[in-house]
Amino acid sequence: MKAEIISIGTELVLGKTIDTNASYIAKKLMLLGLELLRKTVVKDEPSELISALKSAISRADVIITTGGLGPTEDDITMNSLCSAISGDVVYNKEIEKAIRVYYKNKDLKHIPKIAFRQAYIPKGAKWFGNRVGTAPGILAKYKGRFIICLPGPPRELIPMFEKYVMPYLKKIAPMKRPVIKTKTVKITGLTEIEVYQKTKELFSHGTNVCLGIYPHLGEVHIEITARSRKEKEAYKNMTAMEKEIKQRLRKYIYGFDDETLESVVGMLLSEMGLRISVAESCTGGLISSRITNISGSSKYFCMGVTAYSNKAKKELLGVSEKKLKKYGAVSKEIAFEMAKGIKNLSDTDMALAVTGIAGPTGGTKKKPVGLVYIAVVSDSLTNVKKYLFTGNRTEIKYQISTRALDMVRCMLLSGHRPERPLFK
Amino acid sequence: MKAEIISIGTELVLGKTIDTNASYIAKKLMLLGLELLRKTVVKDEPSELISALKSAISRADVIITTGGLGPTEDDITMNSLCSAISGDVVYNKEIEKAIRVYYKNKDLKHIPKIAFRQAYIPKGAKWFGNRVGTAPGILAKYKGRFIICLPGPPRELIPMFEKYVMPYLKKIAPMKRPVIKTKTVKITGLTEIEVYQKTKELFSHGTNVCLGIYPHLGEVHIEITARSRKEKEAYKNMTAMEKEIKQRLRKYIYGFDDETLESVVGMLLSEMGLRISVAESCTGGLISSRITNISGSSKYFCMGVTAYSNKAKKELLGVSEKKLKKYGAVSKEIAFEMAKGIKNLSDTDMALAVTGIAGPTGGTKKKPVGLVYIAVVSDSLTNVKKYLFTGNRTEIKYQISTRALDMVRCMLLSGHRPERPLFK
Repeated sequence: MKAEIISIGTELVLGKTIDTNASYIAKKLMLLGLELLRKTVVKDEPSELISALKSAISRADVIITTGGLGPTEDDITMNSLCSAISGDVVYNKEIEKAIRVYYKNKDLKHIPKIAFRQAYIPKGAKWFGNRVGTAPGILAKYKGRFIICLPGPPRELIPMFEKYVMPYLKKIAPMKRPVIKTKTVKITGLTEIEVYQKTKELFSHGTNVCLGIYPHLGEVHIEITARSRKEKEAYKNMTAMEKEIKQRLRKYIYGFDDETLESVVGMLLSEMGLRISVAESCTGGLISSRITNISGSSKYFCMGVTAYSNKAKKELLGVSEKKLKKYGAVSKEIAFEMAKGIKNLSDTDMALAVTGIAGPTGGTKKKPVGLVYIAVVSDSLTNVKKYLFTGNRTEIKYQISTRALDMVRCMLLSGHRPERPLFK
Repeated sequence: MKAEIISIGTELVLGKTIDTNASYIAKKLMLLGLELLRKTVVKDEPSELISALKSAISRADVIITTGGLGPTEDDITMNSLCSAISGDVVYNKEIEKAIRVYYKNKDLKHIPKIAFRQAYIPKGAKWFGNRVGTAPGILAKYKGRFIICLPGPPRELIPMFEKYVMPYLKKIAPMKRPVIKTKTVKITGLTEIEVYQKTKELFSHGTNVCLGIYPHLGEVHIEITARSRKEKEAYKNMTAMEKEIKQRLRKYIYGFDDETLESVVGMLLSEMGLRISVAESCTGGLISSRITNISGSSKYFCMGVTAYSNKAKKELLGVSEKKLKKYGAVSKEIAFEMAKGIKNLSDTDMALAVTGIAGPTGGTKKKPVGLVYIAVVSDSLTNVKKYLFTGNRTEIKYQISTRALDMVRCMLLSGHRPERPLFK
């Protein structure tokens, strides 16, 4: 069973917006054993969309479109679809009702008239409710093809896909499809080439288990894909490969699949009943923000301080004027002082501090842009490290935050509970 | 003159790699006045690529492919192109020489035999040198169409595009090509529908100036595209439209093009010589992090505190125990106390504080997930507002940070220098 994705939007063609929906859908289709042939991105231009729809219909069994379902004039999906399948447009009272409910739940009395433009759908089509917005999703059948139109904003598309599209596709997907198991192994602290060199013989392992290696900022992911006719065998193959990778990369693996460095650090802190505080300079609050992206982080995260100025470092964190003068704000000594300072201030079990130069200005020959000192202290352990990162300002900030969180992870794993296994 | 981009690579179809090349090329084509009709992403599968090439050739004057030019078996572009244009493959001695030079410059004695696979190109085609890698670029003419094949890695593609492709396209692009001017108007504080309703008559303004409306989390962007035969007229048309939009949306417009809310707030603070500090609860450091994404922010940003626990709110910010008990941590009163507290602590001209519930847990009937109070105080003004946002935890955090930065912007524009015009 073959599938295609058509993303609709001039801003996508022009590269102003990154098409994350297509990647999300691609992964889901793979799990269902559907073969994704092609992705097409077209302008908000009916003739273009109609031609893309027609040629997709000529090739694929399932066509999924994203975007162009809003109420404004440049939302062209519904009419173009009707045109491509020579169908009529009808007004759907049920959708009108859903739009009214959406506005009522938002406590908005006035519903703009154009909102109801979204109640027009192709005759005979099914529609999917949208809890986050007003644009409904659409499922139309035409010449044995399934055409599914979904809204563009990921926060509307994803819940709709999970709730309605996925169960529907499961029903129509071929019964005897191969079982596919995937797992993403997440690595930090090694470059892509280092990861590849440590694992390269695994890459030519045969066709049952494939590996892909994907660099991300500050991280490298290895994607394991195991195929088999039997669920059990696919799982066995995947697990065997996972074991091989673990043996080669050990502590550089911080997590799997949807885990993030902040979720893993949060889980370790929770499990160990420890609390942490953070003092940041060049990262400007990013580390605190990543830690608090995790629901329930208030249990282990108490306080973050962004001490951008020397004044803040002195008055809030108790860093001594003398040391600031002697070593400079970007130094091993000040990172350590900052960590001790925030630990005292917050009375937590652990503390993390960073001081560095995020650039693009402020670097010197001795202390270049990208230089950072990271300190992690606990009641019994201290670790201060120097790193040098490259990239633009936000890239440097992000890489520092990743390294800092990983230093916390490593200290939690090695120091506090040495008996804890590296992997669950 | 019409153009299409075909990106080649299974990893791109599956969404494992983000296609930054296509965005880069799209911008260049627009500047040349070429109309980009469509972007297609195909698997490393000859039949797919051949069909995509054939249909692009049927529609567009210029077809640019990226990827699939390497030496390995899954690099299929050259053979597929020959097949699509029914051309012969020939071995090019000049390219062989260039590959030898590349290896020599790298001080590599052994050249793997497969490297020379890259010397096979379609008969009659031109080739472009690659300084960063070994894969040459290709230019083939077929039935009046120009087909340009470029390597996948952006660090190889971009220099090749600048050096060879751009000058070539300039030559073949129509002399009398339309001049295109674009501007993005960035709006916050209104929904997409509200923006549309205030500006809808501008959307059917004719073909010389087109508008696109794009929702982003917490923001809406209007993209103005003005076309004309004459530079001056395109500029005039764009500016006239910009003026119309400004008249309708006024203070909801925070900036243009590459400006961000944090860069605009930073610019205002810098210009006015004011300094700010931030106390965050539910946003967990995100507001500080956004402010410090701007190079030079140390001039106006002094200190940020993430007071996640009540203890931190009391001890660091001096919020009274009594008020915390009386109003609860998520209240107008505590937001105001936090802002006053960080202002005193940091001795800045302005202070911003937020307290809310980012979810997904922690909400009650009276104080649901998404509820937030934002306080901005200066020496002479105070503004505390209540908002209710929807979305997941990081979406709620981001929307709060946007609203908070915009409240600072509005206070800077209205309160501190009332004579300052809303727009430059």
